[in-house]
Parts: sequence; structure tokens; C-alpha cells
Amino acid sequence: MIGRGLASGAGQVPVVARICIVLIASLCAICAGDARAEDGHALWLRYAPLDEATAIAVNARLGPPELFGNSSPMTQAAQSELSRGFDAMLGQSGRGVILARAGQLPGGDSGLAEPLAGLPSGGYRIAQRHDGRVAVVANDDIGLLYGSFALLRHVASGANLDAIDVTSAPALPLRMLDHWDNPDGFVERGYAGRSIFNWWLLPDHLDPRLIDYARANASIGINAVVVNNVNASALMLTPRYIEKLARLADAWRPLGIRVWLSARFSAPRDLGGLSTADPLDPQVRRWWKDKADEIYRAIPDFGGFLVKANSEGQPGPQDYGRTHADGANMLAQALGGRGTVIWRAFVYASGSETDRVKLAYEEFKPLDGKFASNVILQVKNGPLDFQPREPFHPLFGAMPHTRLMLEAQITKEYLGFATHLAFLAPLWAEALGADTGHGEAGRALTVAQTLAQGGMAGVANTGSDRNWTGGHFDQANWYAFGRLAWNPDLSADEIAREWAAQTFSRDPAFTVPVAETMVGSRQAVVDYMTPLGLAHQMGTGHHYGPAPWVSDLSRPEWNPTYYNRADKSGIGFDRTVTGSDALAQYAPSVAVHWADAATMDEDYLLWFHHLQWDYQTQSGRTLWRELVARYDRGVAAVDAMAAQWADLASYVDARRHRDVADFLAIQKREAHWWRDASIAYFGAVCGCDLPPGTRTPAHSLDWYEAQRFPDAPGNP
Amino acid sequence: MIGRGLASGAGQVPVVARICIVLIASLCAICAGDARAEDGHALWLRYAPLDEATAIAVNARLGPPELFGNSSPMTQAAQSELSRGFDAMLGQSGRGVILARAGQLPGGDSGLAEPLAGLPSGGYRIAQRHDGRVAVVANDDIGLLYGSFALLRHVASGANLDAIDVTSAPALPLRMLDHWDNPDGFVERGYAGRSIFNWWLLPDHLDPRLIDYARANASIGINAVVVNNVNASALMLTPRYIEKLARLADAWRPLGIRVWLSARFSAPRDLGGLSTADPLDPQVRRWWKDKADEIYRAIPDFGGFLVKANSEGQPGPQDYGRTHADGANMLAQALGGRGTVIWRAFVYASGSETDRVKLAYEEFKPLDGKFASNVILQVKNGPLDFQPREPFHPLFGAMPHTRLMLEAQITKEYLGFATHLAFLAPLWAEALGADTGHGEAGRALTVAQTLAQGGMAGVANTGSDRNWTGGHFDQANWYAFGRLAWNPDLSADEIAREWAAQTFSRDPAFTVPVAETMVGSRQAVVDYMTPLGLAHQMGTGHHYGPAPWVSDLSRPEWNPTYYNRADKSGIGFDRTVTGSDALAQYAPSVAVHWADAATMDEDYLLWFHHLQWDYQTQSGRTLWRELVARYDRGVAAVDAMAAQWADLASYVDARRHRDVADFLAIQKREAHWWRDASIAYFGAVCGCDLPPGTRTPAHSLDWYEAQRFPDAPGNP
Repeated sequence: MIGRGLASGAGQVPVVARICIVLIASLCAICAGDARAEDGHALWLRYAPLDEATAIAVNARLGPPELFGNSSPMTQAAQSELSRGFDAMLGQSGRGVILARAGQLPGGDSGLAEPLAGLPSGGYRIAQRHDGRVAVVANDDIGLLYGSFALLRHVASGANLDAIDVTSAPALPLRMLDHWDNPDGFVERGYAGRSIFNWWLLPDHLDPRLIDYARANASIGINAVVVNNVNASALMLTPRYIEKLARLADAWRPLGIRVWLSARFSAPRDLGGLSTADPLDPQVRRWWKDKADEIYRAIPDFGGFLVKANSEGQPGPQDYGRTHADGANMLAQALGGRGTVIWRAFVYASGSETDRVKLAYEEFKPLDGKFASNVILQVKNGPLDFQPREPFHPLFGAMPHTRLMLEAQITKEYLGFATHLAFLAPLWAEALGADTGHGEAGRALTVAQTLAQGGMAGVANTGSDRNWTGGHFDQANWYAFGRLAWNPDLSADEIAREWAAQTFSRDPAFTVPVAETMVGSRQAVVDYMTPLGLAHQMGTGHHYGPAPWVSDLSRPEWNPTYYNRADKSGIGFDRTVTGSDALAQYAPSVAVHWADAATMDEDYLLWFHHLQWDYQTQSGRTLWRELVARYDRGVAAVDAMAAQWADLASYVDARRHRDVADFLAIQKREAHWWRDASIAYFGAVCGCDLPPGTRTPAHSLDWYEAQRFPDAPGNP
Repeated sequence: MIGRGLASGAGQVPVVARICIVLIASLCAICAGDARAEDGHALWLRYAPLDEATAIAVNARLGPPELFGNSSPMTQAAQSELSRGFDAMLGQSGRGVILARAGQLPGGDSGLAEPLAGLPSGGYRIAQRHDGRVAVVANDDIGLLYGSFALLRHVASGANLDAIDVTSAPALPLRMLDHWDNPDGFVERGYAGRSIFNWWLLPDHLDPRLIDYARANASIGINAVVVNNVNASALMLTPRYIEKLARLADAWRPLGIRVWLSARFSAPRDLGGLSTADPLDPQVRRWWKDKADEIYRAIPDFGGFLVKANSEGQPGPQDYGRTHADGANMLAQALGGRGTVIWRAFVYASGSETDRVKLAYEEFKPLDGKFASNVILQVKNGPLDFQPREPFHPLFGAMPHTRLMLEAQITKEYLGFATHLAFLAPLWAEALGADTGHGEAGRALTVAQTLAQGGMAGVANTGSDRNWTGGHFDQANWYAFGRLAWNPDLSADEIAREWAAQTFSRDPAFTVPVAETMVGSRQAVVDYMTPLGLAHQMGTGHHYGPAPWVSDLSRPEWNPTYYNRADKSGIGFDRTVTGSDALAQYAPSVAVHWADAATMDEDYLLWFHHLQWDYQTQSGRTLWRELVARYDRGVAAVDAMAAQWADLASYVDARRHRDVADFLAIQKREAHWWRDASIAYFGAVCGCDLPPGTRTPAHSLDWYEAQRFPDAPGNP
């Protein structure tokens, strides 16, 4: 028997070998997939193997990879990603996709390119050719790259290719990440370890994870990266660092990412030995021109400079009696037609008597039309500072002759650091979709529409942590930022579902409830931190935990009490005509919605109005009771998130499930802390009793006020 | 044919299946191995699959895992590691090892335990049982753990088990890593990213890599970890941090690692609100006693305190007119029988007129016999500060009534950071093997022998970098430190070979030449940085690059010129009787070897002697020419290392090979820089021409002196 078996087996070697090869290939893909995925390092580019039926259906639409047109580093990057993705998902190699530049399709398929006419750079179409095989068609190489990633996303999210026909193009030209990373590796407001940039080893050694970083960015359409902190070190402009930056630019170019620098405005003094940085001084102008020339010699496609000037102690043109436009235009001239200056609108004056949220508008509105054509003004989503909820910034729509960029914060400085699950797509979608009231002839002009000549910048949440972002769900915010910058009309739920499918499991029994929870998570943070339009109630400096009682900081607008204005009689900041009248900075058609406390959306109530504690809210409760109810709602939402995650254990690998569960436990504790400390303080100020049936805070107000966290991360 | 093939194939399913399973299992192991190994994260615990012949031979000595005696968290850790290792190396599961406590062997095998009698804790024997199967026998659970790792090392290094009979026990009781990690994640003298400890997330979340860290330590016998910087923050002693530390202690306990803290001597003032930290003050003594009690309630096996006092600005007992013994004994009493105080001997006084290398001896020699029995004095390997080469510290052998610990620096503060390949085992072996001259009746008393009641501490080189240590070859220094602390008699070559086999490839065509290069690499650094006994010629503060010209620092002993004493007439520090007479701190039988420049080992020449530039060295060359020849020898050695590594590409996966090649390119450039800058400076001081045929420095002396590196890592 043994002899016969062996002999017969030997005769079957080709069959055995074939079966084994198939099995081994798929097993290897699984092994590799598991090894990659379990720690979160693979991000949404995890490419988990497909179930058999889907794999067969997808396979039927693929074939040998083909490229119509010349190969380039960018088409090679696209093909390499397609191989990586389909090999992992299908468990075999050799299957691929047709990539074709619009003008180079063979006759029978030339119609495929028609919808691409007039699309901006990066647009693509994914559709079936006459033979049923899937093709990615684009006007340019970057379109082929984006189309390839879109195709992989489509399949990785669980869809098949049988009726695919997708045409897409970016709504905004600049889709940028801003890194608040210092050259020494510290990340301001970073909660995921140190910087991903190891400048010390560049240009000699490039960490391969910087290629993975660029792949992740390219997969969601990000095309620009500011590599250093807006509180900028002049070191980044020295020849030694330009050489380092050039190595990075070379590595990222095939993935469509341009490098940018935050420029320290005083660099001509700091590095150049000049006695001034006055933007109208000829020597200063020469210094910047020479510096720009030096950079462009090393990096021909250098993006340009991002500048934080005359804000929070940074140098700027006002040091020399010049305007922001003088400063920006001087740098714009140095760059010439080669690059762009992005000038931040985030300024507020020390000791000003006016309302802090009015300052950027007051400073920049008069400069509309004064900026050079290669200057973009970068405006935060709201007029304060990345709070859990703010109304949109009144500069959007109010600067028709200025290119605008919206600055969002992906890192969660004010929303629980890396540990709280707070999906930010709803926050950004709320801002992007807001009607500014500045449309012509009564038509809507949304915030997103005002960005058409600029774009969106997100303050990155990446770090050296293995999973990039500290919390696994923080990856979703990086992802959502890119997806919304590509298409501001995407819904938060849609983004959440496709992210969850790629990152954890394609099973709708997982993605549907998880996406629902993600979409609700931001309101939960608003509720347990700063409900009803409250803002900036966080701990001093580090912004960790509740501190609504703090009133002793040197600048009035740094104090939580400046924003809550809570006293015996009431709470809230009167920004109507009877108060700071910040409301007047909005178009009348918008302002009218926030003018009347009785009818307005109460999510913004205390942002605009100071009201008595016994004011009756729309729920019928007094303001005090409504406030308590909102805190309780936030806490209950986090409790529910943690319970739901425990129920979903079977869909997620053990390590990542435990990681998230650990973080949700932290969030639960901290949500209760926020609620308890806030109620303890406001109750004491108001002299109000807790509503019947309400849980008493776990500690005394003194205890909450005594907490100190000198070690909170991210605080410069 | 197809039909027949299929039918026949179907008939063979069991055979096919069996073959496939075997293939898949080994393939998966390979895939997993590759995925783990290619970035260096797996360290020497990579467990690469064995070749077929070795696997068969090893398999024959294994069987179902068995444990004689009760299971414990520690035996579970041992069994888990054995499964992990053998599954990966053999490509199958179910094969295992017999673990037996000495008293619990069945009758026929009880003789196996005989060599264990009287061995210290952690000793083990690996041998064959009567049935030929391999057993690990030990007196205690930690011995079983160490024996399991030793067995895995044996197999992973490429040996088979046919005649295995190894008995081993640790030579030194304390085998410790000192982390110079601050609570905020910064690592003083760290070159591998930020700290591996994310204190912010503890105790709620424990990074799984901290378990891998403990596994790596246990595998080489390390049993103690000081988790924070000797320049200590009092924050580490607060209740919040004790809770964090307890989580770590719980996680590490099964792997035999005890946690220790660096204690800030002024903590009773900083945290306790006292007005003094005087060690003789009753309130201070009470504060420390209470603090120790608090710690032991949370961590019953807490190791104790490491203290840097009255050194480089740190607080200490001398602030109150007390001695180091007063300070150490006060803390020792607070710990009581529960723990140990490790007191650092690294002190030097400001503005002292004497020779800095004499200060520790002068300070501590008079205190011999004055320390409590649970105090250990921690002495650096040499009397200066972790230089590429120093003579051993004169305190070794001179403190017969004091427990001593040798402090080595694994992180390469003075040996090229993480980028230079410098294997430190030869440096440490040189110190450990030195005869102190203090033996009785003319017998040798080596430095290692003086540590029998103490141990070895190594300043860790770990960080958040994926490969833990920045450079792949820096892993070898962590490994070598542990191996030498277990057995100071191991040769550097032996350690290098077993490390290289486990880490890269078992092929002797790889391990033999690589080990030879590693062993020579330390002398190369000595040659290109500080040849002939020079020391401390590094750049100010960060210690990066050459700066032999620096003479303007506020403390004389911070200046390289203080150490080189180079002038028109000669170079070197006269430490003989005509100079500082530091030589007199050594036993006469040792001092005599260094007293005569003409006959001594010239590796220490300028450490002990100031000599004319035209002094004739043993090579027949003048001192100046010998100096140049040594620099050139160092540079040539690095050039050769880089060339050799390029030749060995076929033995190493592509990513790690490229990583190392990148770093060797940096080392080459920096070795040339060191040589060129040093020759430019000393040549100018001496007024000497370059020897004929010698390469001229690439730049002028001015150029070298103008280099600035404000961004060099690790500098506090």
C-alpha cells in the first residue's frame, strides 16, 4: 500500500504541485496579511483576503496587467500597489488591471475616456472595457494612481467589479497634511509617539515607513505635506535640511506628494545675519529669493511655504509695522511662479478688549484682494480653535477675492487626545456643508465651495507609534480627512463604513453598527465636554481634562471662564448685538438663525447667548437641567460604545480588539470625569441643586480643581 | 487526460493533503518569519526555520511538552517561548521539551539534577533523559525559564541536540538595564526614537512590545530594570506613577524581571512639602519609609532605588553636609530587607584643581565599609565617562568591604550613536577581565570577581524604533551585555557568532567573518576617534563628532583640551607621579605596567603620559606619525567593514542589509571626518607636516571648527 501510494503520488506530482502552489500562495497571503494587520500598521491598506465567491467574481474582471502609454515612476507605483493589493486579496499573483492614459486607449475603448474631458488633474474613470476587463483611465499619471487606489478601495470594501463604472475627480486642488513636528522629533499636540520624520538620519537613511505613509496619503488623494511645525525652527531652512528634504521629495514624488515647509518669518535674521526681517527691506527680499532659489535647485517641485506670523509669539511682518499682506506677498514674490505661500489666519491680539473669536475676521477681511495670486489664506474651520463644536469661521464667504484653505485638526488636541473614540468626519462635514450666506442671487455658497481655489489642510495625527495614530480609530480621522478633501459631499457614514470594512471586517454586521457609532461619537464628545455651545473648558496648556473654573491665566482669552461666563445669574457668551456682536461677522441670512435663543439650534446656544440658569430650553427643561441632561447623554453614549465594542469581538483580531477596548475604558472614565467635574463647578457657581435622580459627582469640586497633569503629552 | 488526472488526484487527496499541510506549515513559518524578521523587530529571538537535516535531528530529541512540578506563570512563560521557538524553527507544532524542577524528576533521571547542587538562583542544566529526549532541569522556576531560552539559543544558533549537556548559572546576582528615559518619552543619550515606556497610557494600556522587551531580556538573563533616568523626575514617585509601575511589574514578573526606580534625592521637598531632604532629618526618613511602604504595597518584589546624587547638578546628601554613605544608608533603611539601594559613584566636583578621573576614588574609597548591607556602589567601567577606551576604574578591588556593580553604557553616547557599527563586548570584556592587582597572596582579582555581590548595569540603548536600537548591530550590544553579565568569561567572538547566527544567518560563511569584523569594530572606533589613549574629544554637549579644539566651556573638565593637553611641545595627560598621579590610585602591581611609556601598552599611552611630538613610539615612528597612522588605521577598518557587508548581501534580507549599508556609509563619512578634523587640529597645534603619502584633510581646520549640530539627538 505504502509503495503504491508513493508511486501513484509521484505520478501526480504536477497536480499535487499545482494544488500546493495555490494553497501555499493563499496561505502565505493570509499569514502575511495577519502579520501585517494585527498591530494596525497596515492602516486601511490591509488588503485582507476576500471570501471565495467575491474573489472569483473579481478575478473574472482582471487579467495580466497592462499599461497603455509610457511607464513612469508614478505608473510603476500604481502597478506595484495593484499587485500588492490584489495578490493579498485574491491570494495569487499575475492578475492585474489595465491602466490607460485617456489619449492612448485602443479604438474600441476610446469612448471610455469621454467623461474625463475637462476634469482636473487626478481625475479618473474605472469601467469595463469591451472585453469585460476592468480598466483605469485618466488624463494624467496621477489620475491613474488615484484610480488604482480607488479600485483597490472598491474591492477591499467588499464590492465586486461586475458593473463598476466610477468617474471621480478632486473637488479641491490642495489636499494637505500639516505636521506640527519639530526637528528634534517632538510633535506639538501629538499623541502617537514621536515624529515619523527622523531628520537626523536623512538624507543617508530613509525609513521605509515614510513610503508607507506616502502610500496611505496617495490612497485618499492627499497631495501635499508640510513637514514641520508652524511654530517653525529656522533650522529647517538651512542647507543641511534642504538636502534632507530633497531625499524625502524624491521618495514621495512617484506617489504624488509634494513637500512644503513651515517658514520662520525671522529666518533672514536667525540664519542670514541680517538685522531685520522687514518684508519691505531689499536685503530681506533678496535673502528669501536666494533661499527659494536654493530650495528649487534641490527640489524642482517644492510646494511652498506655510507661515504662522504674529500669532502666539511667532515673528511676523507686524513686528516691522507691515501688514500680513506685505509679509505674504514678499514670500510669494520670492517663490515666483514656482510655488505658493499659505498664510495662516489664526491670530489673536494680547489683552484685546474685544471678543477673541472676532479677531481673525477683523484682521483679514480688510485685506481681501490684497494678496498675490500665489497666496492662500488658511482659515480654521471655526473662529476659536478646533473645539468639539464651533460655528463655521465667518471669513469663509467673506473673502471673495482671496484664495482660501480650510484648516482642520486631525490630531485631537481638544477631543480627548488619541484615547477617545471621536470620529471627526461629522465635524468637518458640518463645517464644509454650512451655507455661508454669501452666495449670489440667494443661492447657497457653502464653505466647501469657497475652497475651490485653495483646499483643505489637516493637522496630522501621525507619530512613531506602530499603528501611526495612537488609537486605531484615530486612523479613521486621517482617512476621513483625505476623503472629504477629495469630495466634501461624502457623508460621514459612507466614509466610516468603507474605512471600517478595509480596516477591520467587511461584514455588514460589523460595519453598519460600527459606522453608526462612529458617526455619533463626535456628538458624544461635545456632550460630555462642552455641551450646548460651550467651548474651551479644557485644562491649562495641555488641554487635557475639564477645567471650567480656571480664571487666573495671564491672557483673559486663555481662561475657560472667559468662554463660559458662568456666574450666579447665568451662563454663556453674549455674541449678539447686546454683547460682542460677533454675530454681525456672518451674512445676515446666517446670523438670523443664531440671533434668537428661543428658535435656534441649541447646539450653538451658549456660544451666542448668555442666559439665566432657569431659562427654559426647547426640551422644556431649565437651562441648568438641560446642561446636566446633555452631560449625562454624552456619558451614556460612551458607555454604550464600550458595550457595543465588547459585543463585536468576533469580527476583530484579538490584539486590536483589546487595544480599542483599553482605550474605550479610558474614555469612559474620562467622560465621567468631565461630566462630574463640570456639573460640580457649574452647580456651585449657579447654586443649583442636582436634578432629582441625577448621580452626584464622584469627588468634591476641590478634588477636581486639585488635579495636575504636568506630564500630559503634546504640550510644548 | 484531464478527467483521469482529476479522478486520480481525487483518489490521492489524503497524500496531497498531507504533503500540502507540511508544505503550508513550513511556508507559513517562513512567511511569518520573514514578515517578523525583515525589520529587525524580532531581535535575536527570530527563530528562523532550520534546514531539513538539522530539523530532523532536533525533532528526534523532542516530544510532547512535559512539566514535572506545578505550573506557574514563569513555567508557562517558558513553555510558551519553547512553543513559539520550536514551532517557528521546525515548522510544526506539538514538539516540546521536558521541564523539571530538580526535586521532581522521576527516579531514572534524578541524577540529571546533581550538577545543580549549590548553584545560584537561575542555574539550569540541559541534558538528555534516559529515553534520549531533552530535558531542562533547574532548582527554581527562573532556572527553567533561563534554561528554556538557552536551549532555544543553542538550536537557533545552528547546533543540534544529539550530545547536549550544558550546565550554567549566573556569575553575578544583579544583571540590570538602566533606562535614561524621562516620563515625557525623551531618552537621554537615546538614539533609537523615544522611550519604549508610554507612561501616559499606563496602567490602562500596556504596549505588547513591553512583553517582547521582557522576553528579550529574560533570554539573556537580565533580571532587573531601572525604568527611569538617573537624572530623575520626582513625578515617578507619585501615587499615579506607582500604579503605572505596578502594571509593568505584574507583566514582567513571569519573565523574571524586577522593576526599580531612579529616585530623586530631593523628593521629600519636591513632593512631600518638607523644607529639607537632609538624610538625617527624622521627617525626611519618615517620608522615605512611608514612600517605600506605599511602593511595596503595590509591588511586593520592587527592586529598589538607583540614585545619582551630588553629581552634575543633582541633589544629594552633600547639600546638607552629609556624606554619600549617610544618604545611601537612609534610603537603605527605608527599604529595609525588601530592597536595595544602588548608589552611583559617578561624581566630579566643579572647578576642582585635581584630575577629574581621580574624583570618584577620592570621594568613595574612604567610605569603604560604611555602607549598609543593602547598598551597592555602582561604578562606571572606567574613571572618566564611557569613552571608547579607558583603563578600568581604580575603585574596583579597592573597596573590599563594599558591594560593587559595574556600570556599562550600551547606548553609544561616545561611540558614534546608533549609526556606527561598534561592538562593545571587547570593551566590556577588557574591563571585566582586568586584574585589579588587589588579589590576596599574589593571586589575580579581576574586575569581574569584585562584582560577585553586586552585578552589572548597562545603560539601555532601546527606543521606539521598530528595530529597538536604531542600528541593527546595536542589538548585538544589548545582547552582549546580558551574556557577559551572566558569564563574564565569554569571549567577544563567541557572543558575536551566536548573535549573528540567531539574528541574520546560521551559515558559518556569514557568521565567522561578521563576528571577526564585530570584534575588531571597537578598536576601529578607538582609532578614528581617540587613538593612543586620548579621550573625550567629542563635540560639546551632544558628543557628536570631533572637537579636540574646544577649550572655552565653563568647567575645565568639560573641554577636550583638558584631556588632550596638546600644545606646541607635545600631547597627553601626565597622570604619573610627575603629573596628577592618578596612577597611584591603582594597585602597585598594576600601576607599574602603565608607569613607563617606553614599555607600556600604547593603547593607554596618552591617558597616562604627556609626550613630545617627536617621541619615538614602539613602532619606530614619532608620536605624531604614529597618531596619524592610528587614525588612518581606523578609517581603513571602516572602509573594509563596509566593503565586507556589501559582499555578504546574499545572507541577509534586503531591507536589513540596506539599513546596515546605509549606516555603514554614514560611519565611513564620519570616520573620515574624525580623522581629518583631528589631524587638522593636532597638526596645527604641533606645527607638524603631514607624513609623506598621507591624505590631506578634506577641509580646512576653520571649516571643522565651524560645524554646529544643535539637532544632535539624545542631548538633554
